[in-house]
Amino acid sequence: MGMIQHIVQHQRFQQIVIGLIFTNAVIIGMETYPALYDPNPQLFFWLEQAFLWAFTVEIALRMVAAGSPVRFFKSGWNLFDFVIVASGHLFVGGYFISVLRILRVLRVLRAITVIPSLQRMVAALLRTIPAIGNIMILLSILFYLFAVIGTILYRDELPEYFGSLHTTLLTLFQIVTLESWASGVMRPLMEQAPYAWIYFVVFILSGTFIIVNLFIGVIVTNVQEVATICEKTGEPRPTAQDIRLAEVHSEVQQLRQEMRELATELREKAHRK
Amino acid sequence: MGMIQHIVQHQRFQQIVIGLIFTNAVIIGMETYPALYDPNPQLFFWLEQAFLWAFTVEIALRMVAAGSPVRFFKSGWNLFDFVIVASGHLFVGGYFISVLRILRVLRVLRAITVIPSLQRMVAALLRTIPAIGNIMILLSILFYLFAVIGTILYRDELPEYFGSLHTTLLTLFQIVTLESWASGVMRPLMEQAPYAWIYFVVFILSGTFIIVNLFIGVIVTNVQEVATICEKTGEPRPTAQDIRLAEVHSEVQQLRQEMRELATELREKAHRK
Amino acid sequence: MGMIQHIVQHQRFQQIVIGLIFTNAVIIGMETYPALYDPNPQLFFWLEQAFLWAFTVEIALRMVAAGSPVRFFKSGWNLFDFVIVASGHLFVGGYFISVLRILRVLRVLRAITVIPSLQRMVAALLRTIPAIGNIMILLSILFYLFAVIGTILYRDELPEYFGSLHTTLLTLFQIVTLESWASGVMRPLMEQAPYAWIYFVVFILSGTFIIVNLFIGVIVTNVQEVATICEKTGEPRPTAQDIRLAEVHSEVQQLRQEMRELATELREKAHRK
Amino acid sequence: MGMIQHIVQHQRFQQIVIGLIFTNAVIIGMETYPALYDPNPQLFFWLEQAFLWAFTVEIALRMVAAGSPVRFFKSGWNLFDFVIVASGHLFVGGYFISVLRILRVLRVLRAITVIPSLQRMVAALLRTIPAIGNIMILLSILFYLFAVIGTILYRDELPEYFGSLHTTLLTLFQIVTLESWASGVMRPLMEQAPYAWIYFVVFILSGTFIIVNLFIGVIVTNVQEVATICEKTGEPRPTAQDIRLAEVHSEVQQLRQEMRELATELREKAHRK
Repeated sequence: MGMIQHIVQHQRFQQIVIGLIFTNAVIIGMETYPALYDPNPQLFFWLEQAFLWAFTVEIALRMVAAGSPVRFFKSGWNLFDFVIVASGHLFVGGYFISVLRILRVLRVLRAITVIPSLQRMVAALLRTIPAIGNIMILLSILFYLFAVIGTILYRDELPEYFGSLHTTLLTLFQIVTLESWASGVMRPLMEQAPYAWIYFVVFILSGTFIIVNLFIGVIVTNVQEVATICEKTGEPRPTAQDIRLAEVHSEVQQLRQEMRELATELREKAHRK
Repeated sequence: MGMIQHIVQHQRFQQIVIGLIFTNAVIIGMETYPALYDPNPQLFFWLEQAFLWAFTVEIALRMVAAGSPVRFFKSGWNLFDFVIVASGHLFVGGYFISVLRILRVLRVLRAITVIPSLQRMVAALLRTIPAIGNIMILLSILFYLFAVIGTILYRDELPEYFGSLHTTLLTLFQIVTLESWASGVMRPLMEQAPYAWIYFVVFILSGTFIIVNLFIGVIVTNVQEVATICEKTGEPRPTAQDIRLAEVHSEVQQLRQEMRELATELREKAHRK
Repeated sequence: MGMIQHIVQHQRFQQIVIGLIFTNAVIIGMETYPALYDPNPQLFFWLEQAFLWAFTVEIALRMVAAGSPVRFFKSGWNLFDFVIVASGHLFVGGYFISVLRILRVLRVLRAITVIPSLQRMVAALLRTIPAIGNIMILLSILFYLFAVIGTILYRDELPEYFGSLHTTLLTLFQIVTLESWASGVMRPLMEQAPYAWIYFVVFILSGTFIIVNLFIGVIVTNVQEVATICEKTGEPRPTAQDIRLAEVHSEVQQLRQEMRELATELREKAHRK
Repeated sequence: MGMIQHIVQHQRFQQIVIGLIFTNAVIIGMETYPALYDPNPQLFFWLEQAFLWAFTVEIALRMVAAGSPVRFFKSGWNLFDFVIVASGHLFVGGYFISVLRILRVLRVLRAITVIPSLQRMVAALLRTIPAIGNIMILLSILFYLFAVIGTILYRDELPEYFGSLHTTLLTLFQIVTLESWASGVMRPLMEQAPYAWIYFVVFILSGTFIIVNLFIGVIVTNVQEVATICEKTGEPRPTAQDIRLAEVHSEVQQLRQEMRELATELREKAHRK
């Protein structure tokens, strides 16, 4: 088991796995071209089997190296790797062919698990989500509010966009990305409901205001973190002031030493007398 | 009254109210589906009555707990809650059915009032508005200026977009969101007014410049606040410099003490002689 | 003249001018509605004359109060005010009726001159322009480069968008705002020039990259300014460290004083002996 | 050779080269207008030859001034200049006429090489790219993942947008710029694949989230740099604390000197006794 641990932690092992993931991704991409796939589906099937088993061996090795499955699955990344690879073995029927193909593509995401710098960055991105939790709730309330109002008011005028609550929610998502909100949605609607512009202008102003504040919140949080890191890492590097203060300290210490020596001398002299 | 205050401030009371608000929101959403509403309108009517009275009781309890109506209405949030709920009782005629339904949806906004963290955040968002007041005035002047110019110049060429002052204002809002400004508005207009591009390019450049500065203003204000908070919270934590300075201080104090002792000794000795 | 100066600098004078500017703006807006203008054009003509002379008097008063025209025109804002009002007197022929109407609308911009907080803000906005001068040159080079390339390559394929250098420049401005760049321009072009996507993707990536950096530059400049202001205003307020350093200084000074006294005593004693 | 170095480094030399580059750019722009080019193609040909040889002489002079070609080509900017100008001589056949014309336009980019402030800025822009390298890899993975999934799922429904892997990649680029993503791509697709909205909403949310974080990363990096520069440039300017610390230092040094003098006196006196 010590040898397996040695293998798994070896840099070459990691490089091979990254290589396998990217080669697999390229082959999955090639499969989407009928000109490449149709002449030799068997080749692609065997390549797929080879990759699947290579990844299975890799996961197995890492699981053994971890000591126990419990310790292995404690990391969310390992669980993700396991599910992605295991699902490749499960859906081998003819029915789930389309699900299987998509699950295979998701293996590209394993690049994030395997490359440490990417893993750290994704973890950092995910950490920003709770910080924006409250503003996401507020955005959800705004969307729900305008979805219900939009459905009640414009259901009959423009059923394609406001036909039902979920249709309206999708339309609101389109509006908040500012895509064809006027030319495609508002202007056709205004032919029947001339005051519809109030609904759109209020929603766009409040929606973008909240989203902008969401971004600003993330920026400020990041700047704050940087500032904190700066302070911490900035400390060891001595400034001109630090150097001068150190000199003063040293001078005062020497002064005290000289003072003590003089005092001792004077006292001794006084004694001797 | 002490007991009512106790109830109102209890965490469970708050949780129940939040639960009621969200359940009410879900039911209002369900009502928009004819498949759910049409078979049993009576059920939805009674549910609505139940929620309305539950909220009425809640507001009444909080008003009693506040001591006096004056003290209760001093908070804008309470006033908002009261108006939202009271309006549910007022518009019970058959005429205002559509107004009533929309007012009922606005109860979702009470989630902001009831959840303290949301309330704080919305208050913080609203506080940023005065800081951007001046830039909003500037933006209004820009919009008005281009609305009048656009109406005078392109009224006859493209009445759908520039027919009258308010139509042009809406078109300018569409243009500033960059939605179909070229494909839908400028290019059709340029077939008749070949120099219309000047109007659009100048408006987009100045409009987006002001809006970007508006956002930057908010970002800078936020960073500034963070910086101020950092300074305040950062002070108590002693830095390496603080520690060293404290040491110098202590050494100097001890030196002075030793100096004084020596002086006293020398003087006493001189006296004794 | 002292009285005129007193009048001009009076807050009430400023308020009246602001009131006149906004009333004038509203009336100019009302003129664009034929329903309001067509029944009584004479009324609007006399109102216009009244406003024009009121502003003329205002400018004259401020010019007198300034002492000399040279001192008055030293401020760019005053020159702007003068030109706007003077042009109202110049174009009174029947020919320039449309130019005149637009010049009259520009008087709304005088609100910026007259309201000091707006004036300061616009001055601040204009000051950010030189800071982004270099990046504007770079953006111009990019636009010119892609305009020439686009005109050479796609002139015949899509003359509406790439027919000549200035047409292509306008198309590039549309593309950089991301408006219908794919649905309206690239996809129709790709039917004839299948590799046109390279041109569009490269232009969008480099264009938005430069624009984003332009915005970031402005943000960073602003944060920097805030930081500098913070430092300056932060200095007078003594920190814990300042206080401690002051104490050390005072102690060292007292120590030196005591030291000198002791030395004097010892020397005197030695002399006396 | 010393004289050549003197010429090349002269400010007038640089100004002439900048002038030549911009004149050349204007002439290349004029060539795109048939009304200007068609009557006198010979004139434009000779002008082009003149500019080409002027730039050749300039590069040759700078190469001589650099001492050796190796030293000259060590700078990437010089290499860029050389390739741009040399290519003008290479493609003089009739075949590569279109390639040649585009290569000639690229000479506008030499403005960046020749104007030092532009060169510094572009170098600064390029330096931000490695900092965003990781997030670019993540974005590539996201694009590839959604491209494969999109091609598999919607190849048959909407071949114009999802026909093959590279077509889908271009469509995803269009979607991430939010251009006609709903009106042009999603809504037509949803007529056949009603759940297609999941694909679009997930892609837009994750794509814009990553891009926003990319921008935020650049902003934070820039603010950090500014902060570091501030610290560095801020140091020489002595603060009130620095001044006080310097005073303390000086006082302690004088105190030590006085102390030593006293000690010497006392010791001498003791000796003499």
